[in-house]
Amino acid sequence: MFYHTKRLQYFTPPANPDPIYAKKMQELIGGSFGEMTVMMQYLFQGWNCRGPAKYRDMLLDIGTEEIGHVEMLATMIAHLLEKAPVKMQEDGAKDPVVGAVMGGMNPRDVIVAAMNPQHEIVSGGGATPSDSVGFPWNGRFIVASGNLLADFRSNLHAESQGLMQAVRLYQMTDDPGVKDHLSFMIARDTMHQNQWLAAIEDLKSEGFEDTVVPGIAYEYGKNEYAYQFWNNSEGEESAEGRWAKGPSMDGKGEFQYVANPEPIGSIPEPPQPDPRLHGTPK
Amino acid sequence: MFYHTKRLQYFTPPANPDPIYAKKMQELIGGSFGEMTVMMQYLFQGWNCRGPAKYRDMLLDIGTEEIGHVEMLATMIAHLLEKAPVKMQEDGAKDPVVGAVMGGMNPRDVIVAAMNPQHEIVSGGGATPSDSVGFPWNGRFIVASGNLLADFRSNLHAESQGLMQAVRLYQMTDDPGVKDHLSFMIARDTMHQNQWLAAIEDLKSEGFEDTVVPGIAYEYGKNEYAYQFWNNSEGEESAEGRWAKGPSMDGKGEFQYVANPEPIGSIPEPPQPDPRLHGTPK
Amino acid sequence: MFYHTKRLQYFTPPANPDPIYAKKMQELIGGSFGEMTVMMQYLFQGWNCRGPAKYRDMLLDIGTEEIGHVEMLATMIAHLLEKAPVKMQEDGAKDPVVGAVMGGMNPRDVIVAAMNPQHEIVSGGGATPSDSVGFPWNGRFIVASGNLLADFRSNLHAESQGLMQAVRLYQMTDDPGVKDHLSFMIARDTMHQNQWLAAIEDLKSEGFEDTVVPGIAYEYGKNEYAYQFWNNSEGEESAEGRWAKGPSMDGKGEFQYVANPEPIGSIPEPPQPDPRLHGTPK
Amino acid sequence: MFYHTKRLQYFTPPANPDPIYAKKMQELIGGSFGEMTVMMQYLFQGWNCRGPAKYRDMLLDIGTEEIGHVEMLATMIAHLLEKAPVKMQEDGAKDPVVGAVMGGMNPRDVIVAAMNPQHEIVSGGGATPSDSVGFPWNGRFIVASGNLLADFRSNLHAESQGLMQAVRLYQMTDDPGVKDHLSFMIARDTMHQNQWLAAIEDLKSEGFEDTVVPGIAYEYGKNEYAYQFWNNSEGEESAEGRWAKGPSMDGKGEFQYVANPEPIGSIPEPPQPDPRLHGTPK
Amino acid sequence: MFYHTKRLQYFTPPANPDPIYAKKMQELIGGSFGEMTVMMQYLFQGWNCRGPAKYRDMLLDIGTEEIGHVEMLATMIAHLLEKAPVKMQEDGAKDPVVGAVMGGMNPRDVIVAAMNPQHEIVSGGGATPSDSVGFPWNGRFIVASGNLLADFRSNLHAESQGLMQAVRLYQMTDDPGVKDHLSFMIARDTMHQNQWLAAIEDLKSEGFEDTVVPGIAYEYGKNEYAYQFWNNSEGEESAEGRWAKGPSMDGKGEFQYVANPEPIGSIPEPPQPDPRLHGTPK
Amino acid sequence: MFYHTKRLQYFTPPANPDPIYAKKMQELIGGSFGEMTVMMQYLFQGWNCRGPAKYRDMLLDIGTEEIGHVEMLATMIAHLLEKAPVKMQEDGAKDPVVGAVMGGMNPRDVIVAAMNPQHEIVSGGGATPSDSVGFPWNGRFIVASGNLLADFRSNLHAESQGLMQAVRLYQMTDDPGVKDHLSFMIARDTMHQNQWLAAIEDLKSEGFEDTVVPGIAYEYGKNEYAYQFWNNSEGEESAEGRWAKGPSMDGKGEFQYVANPEPIGSIPEPPQPDPRLHGTPK
Ligand SMILES: [Ca+2]
Ligand SMILES: [Ca+2]
Ligand SMILES: [Ca+2]
Ligand SMILES: [Ca+2]
Ligand SMILES: [Ca+2]
Ligand SMILES: [Ca+2]
Repeated sequence: MFYHTKRLQYFTPPANPDPIYAKKMQELIGGSFGEMTVMMQYLFQGWNCRGPAKYRDMLLDIGTEEIGHVEMLATMIAHLLEKAPVKMQEDGAKDPVVGAVMGGMNPRDVIVAAMNPQHEIVSGGGATPSDSVGFPWNGRFIVASGNLLADFRSNLHAESQGLMQAVRLYQMTDDPGVKDHLSFMIARDTMHQNQWLAAIEDLKSEGFEDTVVPGIAYEYGKNEYAYQFWNNSEGEESAEGRWAKGPSMDGKGEFQYVANPEPIGSIPEPPQPDPRLHGTPK
Repeated sequence: MFYHTKRLQYFTPPANPDPIYAKKMQELIGGSFGEMTVMMQYLFQGWNCRGPAKYRDMLLDIGTEEIGHVEMLATMIAHLLEKAPVKMQEDGAKDPVVGAVMGGMNPRDVIVAAMNPQHEIVSGGGATPSDSVGFPWNGRFIVASGNLLADFRSNLHAESQGLMQAVRLYQMTDDPGVKDHLSFMIARDTMHQNQWLAAIEDLKSEGFEDTVVPGIAYEYGKNEYAYQFWNNSEGEESAEGRWAKGPSMDGKGEFQYVANPEPIGSIPEPPQPDPRLHGTPK
Repeated sequence: MFYHTKRLQYFTPPANPDPIYAKKMQELIGGSFGEMTVMMQYLFQGWNCRGPAKYRDMLLDIGTEEIGHVEMLATMIAHLLEKAPVKMQEDGAKDPVVGAVMGGMNPRDVIVAAMNPQHEIVSGGGATPSDSVGFPWNGRFIVASGNLLADFRSNLHAESQGLMQAVRLYQMTDDPGVKDHLSFMIARDTMHQNQWLAAIEDLKSEGFEDTVVPGIAYEYGKNEYAYQFWNNSEGEESAEGRWAKGPSMDGKGEFQYVANPEPIGSIPEPPQPDPRLHGTPK
Repeated sequence: MFYHTKRLQYFTPPANPDPIYAKKMQELIGGSFGEMTVMMQYLFQGWNCRGPAKYRDMLLDIGTEEIGHVEMLATMIAHLLEKAPVKMQEDGAKDPVVGAVMGGMNPRDVIVAAMNPQHEIVSGGGATPSDSVGFPWNGRFIVASGNLLADFRSNLHAESQGLMQAVRLYQMTDDPGVKDHLSFMIARDTMHQNQWLAAIEDLKSEGFEDTVVPGIAYEYGKNEYAYQFWNNSEGEESAEGRWAKGPSMDGKGEFQYVANPEPIGSIPEPPQPDPRLHGTPK
Repeated sequence: MFYHTKRLQYFTPPANPDPIYAKKMQELIGGSFGEMTVMMQYLFQGWNCRGPAKYRDMLLDIGTEEIGHVEMLATMIAHLLEKAPVKMQEDGAKDPVVGAVMGGMNPRDVIVAAMNPQHEIVSGGGATPSDSVGFPWNGRFIVASGNLLADFRSNLHAESQGLMQAVRLYQMTDDPGVKDHLSFMIARDTMHQNQWLAAIEDLKSEGFEDTVVPGIAYEYGKNEYAYQFWNNSEGEESAEGRWAKGPSMDGKGEFQYVANPEPIGSIPEPPQPDPRLHGTPK
Repeated sequence: MFYHTKRLQYFTPPANPDPIYAKKMQELIGGSFGEMTVMMQYLFQGWNCRGPAKYRDMLLDIGTEEIGHVEMLATMIAHLLEKAPVKMQEDGAKDPVVGAVMGGMNPRDVIVAAMNPQHEIVSGGGATPSDSVGFPWNGRFIVASGNLLADFRSNLHAESQGLMQAVRLYQMTDDPGVKDHLSFMIARDTMHQNQWLAAIEDLKSEGFEDTVVPGIAYEYGKNEYAYQFWNNSEGEESAEGRWAKGPSMDGKGEFQYVANPEPIGSIPEPPQPDPRLHGTPK
C-alpha cells in the first residue's frame, strides 16, 4: 500500500513560462525512457520479485521514488504552460493566404503554431501521459521478466538513455529554474545508473551468475556457433573489436571472427497452402 | 545496400506441425525483444553511428545477420502452421449451448479454438509481424541514441531478455526439430550477449568513459543527491546491497543510505488556469 | 442500413484558410473525445442494446447524427487547408545553419514549419482520422458494455470533455466562419450533454437503479469497506467533502473518513518461479 | 512524494492456481477501466488540480490508494499463475496433424493452448501492464482536463465500467480466495462510485455549476439548436424519452423533438487541390 | 448528413451460438481490412474528393453502405455470443494444478478458456471495434490522399484482402445461418472488387492517366533507373517475369534486368554530432 | 541470409541542413507507405510465398533492395539534422509571457519550436522508425496473405501512395541535393509501380485468375447481389460510372444500378443478456 506526502521530492519553478519547452519536456514523463517507464518498470519488477528480500525492497524503494518524479515533472510542466498564448494575432495581414494566421509575425504566433495543441485543448494547461510528440506512454515500454539480472540490465539501459535525455534537455534551455530542477533529476539519474551497476555486481557477489542463464544456454545451445562473430557487412573493421577474439565474457568459449560467413541452412520450402485458405500454390 | 542469399542461415524443420506453438513463437519475431527489434535496433544504430569505424561495421554486421533470423523464424512458423485445422467438429453435440462448437471434444477443436486466428484469416498460414498475443511490432521497441555506451547497454538488455525468452520457448516444446532450430538461435544469442559485454569493455579500453556521460552529469547534477539511496518503501533490507554503501561505480562518490527520506521541495501550487481554458479555479 | 443526403447538417466556411488551426481542429475529429468517438460509441451501443426500444432508437438517432458531424468537420478542415504553403522561402539566408530553411522570416515559413505534415504529404489537403498531434483514432476510445446506466455515464463524460474542447477551440480563433460553425457544434454538444443527463434520469424513472449494479455489488462486496474514504495522501482537507460523511449516494451506507489508513493484507509472497522459466529464486 | 508500506491493502490468495483466469483478470489491471487507469487518471488530475484544496487532496488520496490496487492484483495474478503448465503432452497422438500437440486431451493441454503466452515467455509468471487480450495500457486511456466537473464525470464513468467488470469477473470464478479478494475490490469500487457522485454534488453545493460550462456554451452556442433532439434513425420510439420534451437539465431551454430532421447546410464544395499535391481536380 | 433505417441490409441468424467463431469474425469488423476500414476509407475519400461529381457520389454511396455492414456483423456477433459460458467447471479435479480450472474436460471449458475475454468482461456479449486478436481498429488503417487513382487502388487492395478473409471465414464454419449471411457479404465484396476495377477503367476513359502521376514522375525522376529490375536476391528466377523485359506498363520505358546490381552511392559519412547531444564522436 | 555492402544504393547530400524538412521526410521512412512498409511487406510476402519460384525470387529481390532505401533515407535525415539548433534565443524579450522563449524572432527559434523534439532528445540527430508526426511504424502497416494477386494489389497500392508522397516531398524543397536524391527514389518507385502492374499481368498470363478468388466467391456468394451498385447517398451522379452498367470486370455478371435501395434484412433483435453480465434487459 502507498502513502503520499504533499511536498515534492524537489522543485524549483521556472523563471519564465515556456510552452515549447513544455512540449519537449514531456519526453521525460511519457517517453520510452521517461519517469512513467522507470516507475512502472520498478514497481512491476518489485511486485513480481521472488528473489532475496533486499532486491525486492530495493525495487520498491526506487519504484516509489519514481512516482514522485512524475509528480515533479507534471508540476514543472504546469508552470511552463502558464499564460501560454491561446490564439494567433489578427491584424495587418496583407498576404491573403497566411494573413488570417500570422499578421505581424509576433513571437506569440510561433508559440501558438508550434506548441503541443493538447496542452491547451485536452489538458487545459497540464501535463499529459505522453511523449514529446504526443504519443501516449504504453505498457510495452516496460519489462519485468522475473530474472533479476536480465531486469537489472533493462533498468541500467533505461536509466542510461533517460539520463542522457535529461542532460540533453538541460542544454536545451537557459531558464535557471528549469536548470536547477533538472540538476536534481540528473543527480538522481546518476545515482540510479550507479545503483543498477552496483546491483549487477551484488547479484554476482551473492553467487548468482553474471551473464543471463549461461549454464542453461550452454546446455541447450549449439556451442560451435555460440562464440562466432559473423561478418555480414562488407569490410573487416569489426575484426578489431574485443568481440572478435580472446576469451568470451562468460568464460565458456573463445571469440572467433568468421570473415566470410556462409549460410548453413537449406533453401526454404514452406509447405503448400491449405486450399481453403486460397494462398497461391506452386 | 543489401544482398540476399537464398539459403537460410540455419534451419531444421519441425517434426510435426503445431499451430499453438506457432502462436507462442511469434514472440521471437515481433515481440518487444524479438528478432525484428534487434534487427531494426542494430541497423538504425549502425546508420546513425558517427563513432570509430569498427563499431559502425560491427553494428551493421550483426544487424544484417538479424534480418536472416526473422527469415528463419518466419520459415519455421510456416511449417508449424502446416495443416492447421480450419474448422471445428460438428457432430454429436448434446448441449445446445456448446454443441455447435465442440461436439466430441476432438483435440483439433482445442487447436481451432486457441490458435491465433490471424494465422489463418490474415496470413493464410504464414508468420505475421506481431508478438504472441497478436500485438504488432512497432518502432518504439527500439532506440538509437547516437551514444554508443547507452546503446550497447540497450543491446545487452535486449539480448538478455531475448535469450531468456528463447530458452523458455525451448523448454515449452518437445519437438526435436524445433529444439534443434532453437539451439542454434540460443547459440547466436549467447554470442550476442557476450558481444555486447565485450563491446562495452572495448569502449572503455578505447578511452571512452564507462558510465554514460559521467563528466557532464557531474558538472550539471546536484552531486549531494547523486549517490544517495532513498528508502521510500518500508523496511531496510535494501540497506544490505552494494548500492547502499561503499564507493559509487563511477568512482565519483560514496553511496549513502537515506533510511528516512524527507521531501526537499515545497507543496506544489500550479498556476491558476487561463479563463479561456475553463479549468476549475481556486 | 444507412442513407446519406448530400447537404451538410450545418456549415459555414472559414473566412480565411488557416492550416495551423486545421491541425488543432483535428482533435474534434479523431481525438479521444472527438466526433469519431461519439459516433462509434453510440452506434456500437445502439447495435448492442437489448433494453427498451426507446433507448435503442435514441442511441441510433444520435449515433447517426454524429456521422454527419465528422463530415462537417472534415469539410471545414479541407477549407482551412486551402492554399496551405507547401515550401519554405529561399532567399537572403545569411546564417548558414538555418539559411536554407528560413531566409526572410516570412510568416509562411512558420506555417510550413509547424503545420501537420500529413495534411500535405498524406491527405493532400484533407482531414485525417487522427487527433491534433497526429495520433490515430482507435477502438479503445469507446465502450459499449450492454449496461445502459454505465454507458450513459460514459456518454455524459465524452460529451462533457468534447463540449469543453469545442469551447476551447472556439476561443482559439477569431475567424467568423469557424466561430459560426463551432457555435452550431457547441449547441449540439449542449443538447447532448443535456440528453445524457435526461437519459440517466429516464432510466431511473423507468425503475432501473440509479447507481450501477448496486444490489449485486452490495451482495458481493465487503460492505464494511464500501463506504470508507481512505486518507492516503497527507493532509485532511479531503475530510471536508460530501464524500467523507453523511449517507452514501446509493442510500445503502454512511460515508466514513479513515484518517489514518492501515493496510489490512499481509506482506505478499509470490510463489517461487517454475525453474523452466529461469526467474530468480529466493 | 510517495511512500510504500510492505503490507497489501487487502489480500486473500486463491485456493488454486488458474492461469486462464489470470489472463482474464488482466482486464482489471491494464484494461481501459482497470486500476492503472484510475490510478493514473486521479494522480494526473490531482497534480493538475488548481481548484480548492479539498478536491486536490481527495484526488491524491484516491490516486494513491489505487497504486495499491494494481499491487494487489499483480500479487493475485502471480499466485494464479503458479505452476502453470509450460508444455503440452506428447504421447498417444494418433492423428498426425494434431498429434504433436494434443495427444490425450489432457486438461493441461487446454490451458497451455489458451493461456496468455506472455505470462510465461515475457513475465515468467507475473502480471503484465496490459489487458485481457494482451493489449498494453496506454496514456490515451485517461484524461485530466483541469475542469473538475468534466473530470469527475470521467471518474464516475471509469468506476462504473470498472465496477461492472469486477462484478462480471466475480461471477466468472468459483475460487473462494479470488471471490473474497474481489469482494474487497467491489467494496472499494462501490465507495468510489459513490464518491464521484458525492463529489459532483459537492461541486454544486460549493457554487460551481452543475453542467459543464453552461454559461459559456450558452453564450457561444446557436441556442435554437441547443435543445433539439434529431430523429435521424427511422422510428419515433425515442420521442418517449425524457430527452425529447420538458425543460432541459441545465434549466436553460426546453427539449424539442425534431421528427423529420432536414440538413441546414449546403452541399460541400471542398477547394480544388494545390497542383503540387497531385490530387484529382474537377 | 445521414439517416438510419431500422432494418438490416441483410441478415440470417446463426443456427447456434459459437463464441469462438465470434472471436474470429471480429477480423471482419475491426481488422485491417474489416468493414470499419472500408467504411471510414470511403467516407473520408468522399469527403476529401474534389474530382468529378460521379466519383464523389459513388464514394459516398458505398461508404454509406459499409456502415450498414458493420451493423450487420455486430448483430451477428451478438447472436454468436448468446449463452456463451461464463465460468469453468469445478468438479472432479484430481490434478491439483489444473483442477480448479478444468475438472471434467467439458467442452464448455475449452470455450471459456479460448474465447475473447472482452466479449464478456467489456462488452457484455456484444461486438467490439477490434480485430480477431483484440487489437483495436485505428485510423492508420485507412488512406484518403486526394488522388483518385491512388485511392481506388487502395480500395481495390482492401476489398481483395477483405473478400479473401470473408471466404476463409466462410470455410471455417458449418453453421448454415452464418454461411448464408456471409454469402451476402461475399456477394457485396465481389461487387466492390469489380467496382474498383471498373472505377480505375473509368478514370482512364475520362482522360485521367492510368498510372499514378506518370508525367510528373517522369519529369522529376532519374529515368535511367526508372525501368530497371535489380536482382538483389541470389538466383535469377525473377528474370522470367513480365517485369524484367518488354515495354513498361506506363509506356514510357523498357524494362531492364540488372543481374548483378552494384551500389551507385558512396559510403555514408553522417555528420559528427553536436557536443550538446553527447553522441559518440569519431 | 543477408549481406550488406558499405556503399549506399544512391546518395546525394543536401546542400544545407534543414531539420524541419527532416521531420517531414520521416514519412518516407516510417509512415504507412514508407520504405519500412514496403521492405517488410515484400520480405514477409517472399518468406510466405509458396507459388512459382520467379515470384518468390522477385519478392525477395525487391524486399532486399528496400532495406537499402531505409538506409539511404536514414543517412539523408542525419545530414538534414546537422547543426540543428538546440536552444532558443534569450535576449531582448519585452513581453514577459513569451520573452523567455522568443526574444528577437530569430529564424532559429522557429526551427527549435517546430522540429521533431525526438530528433534531438531521443536519437541525437538521427532518423527514427516513425512517421512525420512521430507515430511509430507498426506491423499492421503490412500484409502478406499468401494469395499473390491480393498481395500484388497491396503492393501496387503501397507504391502508388508512396510514389505520390515522394513527389509531394520533392516539391516541398528547393535543396538541389535533396531533389537529386529524391529523383532517384522517384525513379525506383516508378519502376516498382510498373513492376506490380507487370506482375499482375504476369499472374494472369500464367493462368492464375485476374480477380481475387472469383470462382470460389461465385460459388459461395449470393450472386443476385454480386453485381449491384447500391445508391445509398442521395443523387444519381454515380449512375454515370463504368461500375453502374455493362459487363462486370470478372466477366461473370452484368452491373446493375439500384437507384432506390431497400434493406432486405429484418430489424435486429440481439439476444437478451446473460444475467451474470448485468446488461440492461428489455
Ligand atoms: Ca563487416
Ligand atoms: Ca525499503
Ligand atoms: Ca489527504
Ligand atoms: Ca428514431
Ligand atoms: Ca533474384
Ligand atoms: Ca448516390
